[in-house]
Amino acid sequence: MSSDTANEEAECLGWAARDPSGLVSPYIFNRRAVGSEDVSITITHCGICYADVVWTRNKLGDSNYPLVPGHEIVGVVKAVGSGVVGRFKVGDHVGVGAYVNSCRDCDYCNDGLENHCQKGAVHTFNHLDADGSITKGGYSTFIVVHQRYCFKIPDSYPLASAAPLLCAGITVYAPMIRHKMNQPGKSLGVIGLGGLGHMAVKFGKAFGLNVTVFSTSISKRKEALTLLGADKFVLSSDQQQMKALAKSYDFIIDTASGDHPFDPYMSLLKTAGALVLVGFPSEVKMSPANLVLGARTISGSTVGGTRETQEMLDFCAEKGIHPNIEVIPIQYANEALERLIKRDVKYRFVIDIENSLK
Amino acid sequence: MSSDTANEEAECLGWAARDPSGLVSPYIFNRRAVGSEDVSITITHCGICYADVVWTRNKLGDSNYPLVPGHEIVGVVKAVGSGVVGRFKVGDHVGVGAYVNSCRDCDYCNDGLENHCQKGAVHTFNHLDADGSITKGGYSTFIVVHQRYCFKIPDSYPLASAAPLLCAGITVYAPMIRHKMNQPGKSLGVIGLGGLGHMAVKFGKAFGLNVTVFSTSISKRKEALTLLGADKFVLSSDQQQMKALAKSYDFIIDTASGDHPFDPYMSLLKTAGALVLVGFPSEVKMSPANLVLGARTISGSTVGGTRETQEMLDFCAEKGIHPNIEVIPIQYANEALERLIKRDVKYRFVIDIENSLK
Repeated sequence: MSSDTANEEAECLGWAARDPSGLVSPYIFNRRAVGSEDVSITITHCGICYADVVWTRNKLGDSNYPLVPGHEIVGVVKAVGSGVVGRFKVGDHVGVGAYVNSCRDCDYCNDGLENHCQKGAVHTFNHLDADGSITKGGYSTFIVVHQRYCFKIPDSYPLASAAPLLCAGITVYAPMIRHKMNQPGKSLGVIGLGGLGHMAVKFGKAFGLNVTVFSTSISKRKEALTLLGADKFVLSSDQQQMKALAKSYDFIIDTASGDHPFDPYMSLLKTAGALVLVGFPSEVKMSPANLVLGARTISGSTVGGTRETQEMLDFCAEKGIHPNIEVIPIQYANEALERLIKRDVKYRFVIDIENSLK
Repeated sequence: MSSDTANEEAECLGWAARDPSGLVSPYIFNRRAVGSEDVSITITHCGICYADVVWTRNKLGDSNYPLVPGHEIVGVVKAVGSGVVGRFKVGDHVGVGAYVNSCRDCDYCNDGLENHCQKGAVHTFNHLDADGSITKGGYSTFIVVHQRYCFKIPDSYPLASAAPLLCAGITVYAPMIRHKMNQPGKSLGVIGLGGLGHMAVKFGKAFGLNVTVFSTSISKRKEALTLLGADKFVLSSDQQQMKALAKSYDFIIDTASGDHPFDPYMSLLKTAGALVLVGFPSEVKMSPANLVLGARTISGSTVGGTRETQEMLDFCAEKGIHPNIEVIPIQYANEALERLIKRDVKYRFVIDIENSLK
C-alpha cells in the first residue's frame, strides 16, 4: 500500500440528498478499504450531470437516501493497492465516470465495453455494488475505485475541464466513433446545445465535420456559431430551412431531453443515415416511411466503455478540446441543480470539491 | 438487334386496374422499342406483392390508371439491344424487380445501390420514367428493360420460384447481409410469417442462424417449425415467454405490416442489437430507454441494389432456397389480391403469365 491508513475503511465527507426534495447537504459516510486492485482518489472536481437531478429527486422511484450524487469525477491518486502496478501511482491525475464496477467476465467487459456488461455495470452512485454497499458519488472528498474504472488524465489537461468529459463527453464521443463520424467532410447535426450538445459540436469540429446546431431557441445562435464554431445554426421551428436541408446529414446526435417530434429530423438524414438518441424524451415516435424508404436508422447510446473513454481523454488533450464550464463551490450545488433544470448553464457546472468541500 | 421487330414500339397485352376498386382486367398498351442497352423479356411469371394492392387501389393517392401492377417479374430473353454484350442473350432466364431505372451517376448508383438513387429509382410500375412514360409492370406478356436492372436467373432455378425473390426475397436478404446476419450461430427473430417473413426464415436457416418466428397467430406454429424449419415459435401475446427471451436476439426483422407495439420486441434485442423494419405500420413508437440503455437500433430497409440482388439469386440457386408459392392463372388475380389482403396465402402468389395471359 502506498498509504498507511488505506487498508481500512475511512470516513468520507460528502454532500447527500436526504429525500425527494433533492436538496444536498453535508453527510459523513465510510469508503471501503483500498483493495489490492483499487485506487483511492482525492477528488478535486465533480461535474454536475442531469442524472444528479434525476436521482436526488427520485424521479425514477429507485433512489436510496442518503444519496451522494456525482459521476463526473476527477482528482489525484492518494493511494493504490498492491496489485496496481504501472498504470497508476500516487500523484497521478485520474478520472472516474458513470460506473465503478462490472462483472469483468462477459463478452462486453472483455471487449472494453463495461457500460454494457451482461450482468449490469454498477453505477457510480445509488447502485448496489458487489460488496453489498450502495455506491456514493463524487460530491465527496475522496473515492476508492477498482483501477479498471479509473482513467488517466493527461498532465497537461486542466482537471476542472476533464470532469465533464467523463459523462457528457464520452456520451457523445462514443456514438460518433461507432458511426464513423471521425471522417472529415461528413455532415453532423446536433440537436440541443447543453452539456452534451456543446461537446458534440466540439468533437465534430475536431473531426473535420460540417456541423449544424438545431435548437428551439434563437438565443443560442451566436454562441453556437462564434463561441463553439458550428458551421450552421438552424432554428428547428423554421420549417422552410428544415425542408431545404432534407436528406443532407450523415448523422444527427439528439441530445435534447425534452419531448420533440422525430420525423422532421429523420427526414434530414441522407440514405442510410443515422440519428443517435442520447437524451430521454418521454417517447420516440416516427413515421415508418422515414425509416424504410431511406434505409435510415435511429439508435440509442449511453456513455462508453473504458477503452473508448481513455481514448477520448487522450484525444481531448491532444487536440486541446475543452468543455465550457462554470466552476462553483459545493455550497452552490442546490442552486446549480435548480439552474440545470431551467437549462441555465453554459455549458456544464463543475464543483470545485478541492477548495470548497472541507 | 436479335429480333427484327424489336426496333419499334410494340403492343403488349397486360392486365390493368382502371380505378380504385383495384379490379384488374385485360388491357393493351405499347412497350418502347428495344434500345441499345435494353433487354426485351417474354414474361413467364410474376409474383403478387402487397404493393400491387396498394397501388391498384390508390391507397397512397398517386395511382395513374390504367395501372399494370407487378414487380416480381421473371421470364426469358427474347431480344437484346446492340450494346448488350456478354451479359444477356436470347433464351436466357432473367428477372426484373421493383425498379427499372435510376440516374446511373450518383454515389448510390455507382455503388450498386440503385434502389437509393439520389434522383430516385424509377419503380417498375406506376412511375414516371425518364422518357416521360408511366411504367407498366409484370401482369403483362413482355417487358423492355435496361440491362442494368435485369438479373440473371441461374438455369437450374425454377422460374416460378424466382419471381418472389425479386421483391420479397431481396427485401429481407439485403438488411440481413448489411447487419452481418450471415454469420452462423447468431440469433434471428422474424416478426410476421407472410411472403417476406417466410423468406427471412429460409435465409436465416441457410446462414446457420438460430431462428425464432414471432406471430400473433398460433395457427402458424406448425408450419413455422416443420415446413419452414424455424427453431422456435413464439406467440407474441405470450408475455411470459416474451419476457424470458429478453436481451437474447442479435437481430429482428419486422415484416408485419399491421400496427403493433415495438417495445416488446426492442427489449428482446441484445445490447447493440438491431430491429429492421421492412413493413409499413401506421407509426413506429417506443420507449427511449429501449434504444438508449441497450444501445439498440431500429432501421428501415427497402428492397436492395442490383449487386446484392444478383448475389441473392445466385445464393438461392446454390443453396436450393425456394419460396413457397401458389401458382395461379392471371384470371385468378383479383381473387388472389383479395386473399392477400386477408393474409390467406402460403406464402406467395405467382401468376403463371406464360400459360394464362394470351
